[in-house]
Amino acid sequence: MQFHLNGFRPGDPDLKEAAPRDARPLDVLIVGAGPAGLTLAAYLSGFPEIRTAIVERRSGPMEKGQADGVSCRSMEMFQCFGFAERVMREAYWVNEATFWKPDPDAPDRIVRTGRVQDVEDGLSEMPHVILNQARVHDMYLDVMRSSPTRLEPLYGRSVTGLEVEDDAVSVTLDHAGRAESVRARYVVGCDGARSTVRGAIGRKLVGQAAHQAWGVMDLLLDTDFPDIRFKSLIQSADEGTVLVIPREGGYLVRLYVELDALNPEERVSHRNLEVTDLISAANRILAPYSIEAAEVVWWSVYEIGQRMTDAFDDAAGGDDRAPRVFIAGDACHTHSPKAGQGMNVSMGDGFNLAWKLVSVLRGQADPSLLKSYSRERRAVAKALIDFDEEWARLMSAPPGSRSQSKLQHYFAQHGRYTAGVSVRYEPSDVILADDAAPLARGFSTGMRLHSAPVIRLADGRPMQIGHVQRTDARWLLLAFAPAGPPSAQRDALARLCDALACEGGLLDAITPEGADIDAALDVRAVLQCHHTELAITDMPRLLFPRKGRLGLRDYEKVFCPDPRAGDIFEMRGLDREAGCMVLVRPDQYVAGVLPLGDVARLSTFLTGILTG
Amino acid sequence: MQFHLNGFRPGDPDLKEAAPRDARPLDVLIVGAGPAGLTLAAYLSGFPEIRTAIVERRSGPMEKGQADGVSCRSMEMFQCFGFAERVMREAYWVNEATFWKPDPDAPDRIVRTGRVQDVEDGLSEMPHVILNQARVHDMYLDVMRSSPTRLEPLYGRSVTGLEVEDDAVSVTLDHAGRAESVRARYVVGCDGARSTVRGAIGRKLVGQAAHQAWGVMDLLLDTDFPDIRFKSLIQSADEGTVLVIPREGGYLVRLYVELDALNPEERVSHRNLEVTDLISAANRILAPYSIEAAEVVWWSVYEIGQRMTDAFDDAAGGDDRAPRVFIAGDACHTHSPKAGQGMNVSMGDGFNLAWKLVSVLRGQADPSLLKSYSRERRAVAKALIDFDEEWARLMSAPPGSRSQSKLQHYFAQHGRYTAGVSVRYEPSDVILADDAAPLARGFSTGMRLHSAPVIRLADGRPMQIGHVQRTDARWLLLAFAPAGPPSAQRDALARLCDALACEGGLLDAITPEGADIDAALDVRAVLQCHHTELAITDMPRLLFPRKGRLGLRDYEKVFCPDPRAGDIFEMRGLDREAGCMVLVRPDQYVAGVLPLGDVARLSTFLTGILTG
Repeated sequence: MQFHLNGFRPGDPDLKEAAPRDARPLDVLIVGAGPAGLTLAAYLSGFPEIRTAIVERRSGPMEKGQADGVSCRSMEMFQCFGFAERVMREAYWVNEATFWKPDPDAPDRIVRTGRVQDVEDGLSEMPHVILNQARVHDMYLDVMRSSPTRLEPLYGRSVTGLEVEDDAVSVTLDHAGRAESVRARYVVGCDGARSTVRGAIGRKLVGQAAHQAWGVMDLLLDTDFPDIRFKSLIQSADEGTVLVIPREGGYLVRLYVELDALNPEERVSHRNLEVTDLISAANRILAPYSIEAAEVVWWSVYEIGQRMTDAFDDAAGGDDRAPRVFIAGDACHTHSPKAGQGMNVSMGDGFNLAWKLVSVLRGQADPSLLKSYSRERRAVAKALIDFDEEWARLMSAPPGSRSQSKLQHYFAQHGRYTAGVSVRYEPSDVILADDAAPLARGFSTGMRLHSAPVIRLADGRPMQIGHVQRTDARWLLLAFAPAGPPSAQRDALARLCDALACEGGLLDAITPEGADIDAALDVRAVLQCHHTELAITDMPRLLFPRKGRLGLRDYEKVFCPDPRAGDIFEMRGLDREAGCMVLVRPDQYVAGVLPLGDVARLSTFLTGILTG
Repeated sequence: MQFHLNGFRPGDPDLKEAAPRDARPLDVLIVGAGPAGLTLAAYLSGFPEIRTAIVERRSGPMEKGQADGVSCRSMEMFQCFGFAERVMREAYWVNEATFWKPDPDAPDRIVRTGRVQDVEDGLSEMPHVILNQARVHDMYLDVMRSSPTRLEPLYGRSVTGLEVEDDAVSVTLDHAGRAESVRARYVVGCDGARSTVRGAIGRKLVGQAAHQAWGVMDLLLDTDFPDIRFKSLIQSADEGTVLVIPREGGYLVRLYVELDALNPEERVSHRNLEVTDLISAANRILAPYSIEAAEVVWWSVYEIGQRMTDAFDDAAGGDDRAPRVFIAGDACHTHSPKAGQGMNVSMGDGFNLAWKLVSVLRGQADPSLLKSYSRERRAVAKALIDFDEEWARLMSAPPGSRSQSKLQHYFAQHGRYTAGVSVRYEPSDVILADDAAPLARGFSTGMRLHSAPVIRLADGRPMQIGHVQRTDARWLLLAFAPAGPPSAQRDALARLCDALACEGGLLDAITPEGADIDAALDVRAVLQCHHTELAITDMPRLLFPRKGRLGLRDYEKVFCPDPRAGDIFEMRGLDREAGCMVLVRPDQYVAGVLPLGDVARLSTFLTGILTG
């Protein structure tokens, strides 16, 4: 964490100085304070020059229920927001998954048939955890409350009308029976599967509405089932399937219970199921083990269906104008919750859109940048729907079938997918072509930056290179030095820095007037030598810059491999001889890998996005 | 973290349910909201049955200055309080220390002569960090604010009179010129070097008032000194010594600067030193490097002296009655700040006293337990004074002298001391004799529990065994299973549990009526087998107990070695053949190592302290 740059400020460094309030018109109206909406709101709340409002239909913050799976990738994003440590402390950690099936000798009894490590080694520096969605909301709300804008959701408001105008969007809200009118430059509908924003821009959820019903319940319970604190998938011979998700705090458990197949005409809401029916079903499946609920905290019954919209904004299609209205999260894609993806993909939607909106609203990027949101996130949603269809099919497959026996295999094989780290954005105006990949085989263009351990040159601190990014809409350029004596490594970096920072160069072109030199592009370097072989004061100005009101030096731009934790050059397959540059977007995705000297291509690419 | 035991509660689990306020008389009055007072207050605030008040002379919370070193041992204690993660995120981490001396060829220029790792490998699972005392206060204040008692310091109040009565203490406070009277069962003076509580019970600081003056300043600065982000000790040829302490946030630096020797009659307060004098002195010492202050955040000049009191309470000496008034922190011991010990030892005072006061005030222990506070902590203070005298002597030694050349060696040799992990309480009524040491060579009786990695049986989570303790005044018994097949290990533990939990046994004797079985003694076990070889449901009742209003099972009592992070049986030299028991006090100190079956000695010892 860096603070005190512009002078000492006492107190909690997470509590930012409040910006003066003003009456400028609204820049962004976010509809819905769920995972997608809050990710976006928390991000935007850090920019006092952007005026954001977030409205929510419910009367107050969520307290329980709904999603609970937090993937490694989401934890990496939480790290960027600054609350990963809090989540790690509070959440349940998914360490292993166990699999149970009918005992071949006594099919009315289940037996444990497998046990797998939940996340493969080295996939992420972050764990896969389980924490109630309500608490994830709370983390975002804390970020908003501590931000310069002190943003708070306006509860009890739902959208009743929306009209896109030339330079803004008019929205009508219902607030306790009274109509309110709001105008904003952009509107983002994060208002769930029944999104009114989606309807207002003429988008539809399309796909199959499957007829398999599942029940879900959060229980404080008593049981003799030995794996109740492991994520467990239990398939009975004749009674269906239960998925056990242990929860935060050491006592709470979530159970997903397969219910009977529905007739095509029969809807979940038409069945008069009670939670006692769910518990009975779970007991039939778990035999010879049993559960007894001490407290039912929350429960629900839902029907699996996989649906998504054709586009995530109001402009996609042949339309050439930049979008004004976006939809995100469940408003764009609905699917079963059992792969633990819903909250994660929704937050990913918000994170993808956030930095683009910031860049456009600050005048640093052309509004056409916003078109990439729908394109990139629709592909992610499509992959989710495909994954979920297969997963749901396997989980509901008849016992003893080929499909059912594939389940454990499928789970292990798709670990990267469920960890959220397999998303790859295609080459576009915001992702370079993947032609320099041999320079950095462990950093994949279009995929999230796979962090690795390093040691900070100036203070010898072991840390993760990926943890230098903040939710500040800045791009990151990691320059990996080529082989050679330490002074030659330094000289190679100095040449790069000269090319970047020279008059009329890239930084001149994209850095706002009067801003710190790293305001648009944060250049950092990783040397190959030991951290005691060079001093921070040897570094070129760009890697040891003066910043802020007082012109203080930033000591945190240069890193070295951490020989104990693993050499980043080895771990990420970096070309030691040539070095390279890895350009990372504000949302932690690798925009491209480039030869160390290729400032021309870097400049062409970045000036195509950022205008300074 | 465990929560929801007595039913689901939405929201932040750190924010405890507020206890009803009542008008019972005060149990504890803490005078002074510094590190000692706040450690004690934060601990007591967790017990709604204990009525605590804390008063502070200053008009509000501290904002800057004073101490900043947080030792590994203090971090372990913060972990017990629940805020170690926050401190780790915000603080500067001391990774290495560097040493600078005059260049032999050009003695008016300093050169780097050494570099040492700050904390030896494996000494603690926690880092050594630097964070402003004000922020440490804030962490405690947050704990208090979130506690059931919602305890807040009463600022602007100082003690003007104190009288010990038979069953209470009468205190007179000055509050903005008005006198206030307070009665409390116990009073703890944490009111600093000029403690009025100390004076009121007739204790005096005794020792030498050295005449070496030092200046200290917290700066935002510009410098070409390459190690400004390393803890650095710089000894010039003729200009004295500077100690560089990098600070949290990446920009702030603390400098300790040696000033000229004072004449015996000359007191620091008599010299008209300004911060510019300190900066000039630093520049003379740092030559050929220089510093330029961009902002002086805080500065002070002080004189080194090492003094302490003969006892830390009002009853020590031939006196047989239990104490009513205690003093802690700087009220008992003053010394130079340069070894970074002051705040740590003061917090250690508070932590030592806290659980003893809780045990007595809840009626679980006889008041005579309180006599151990002065005895144990006076020995710690004595060691601190001795260390500081030597350290101050070496730091002020003439350049080129034998003493000066010893400095780096002394620093490295005393790493365990400065990390705070070398404290050893002598055998007494609260520490067993050290006769079973060969059973657990890595757990030293009288010293803090040296944590080690384990895997939790019920959910496969890798964690630290030391992190199971909370600030709840409970004793911890770690039972390490003997060698054998998993079922034999389990059976050995079951026999132990039977002996502990049988009618008329130890737990019967010390556990309060109606309380959970682990309310006084928290029994946990570490098996030698892999965590997949046994299930939590195989465990004896005491290691898988029902607890709370709902009778929910506690799944977090049994652990296994973590083969990846290191086998705890190897790391701590445990007797694999016999197993053993390690009894840990509520303040994380090992009270004794015992043969696995020696429940008789365990019972004799614990029933000598706890009455149930």
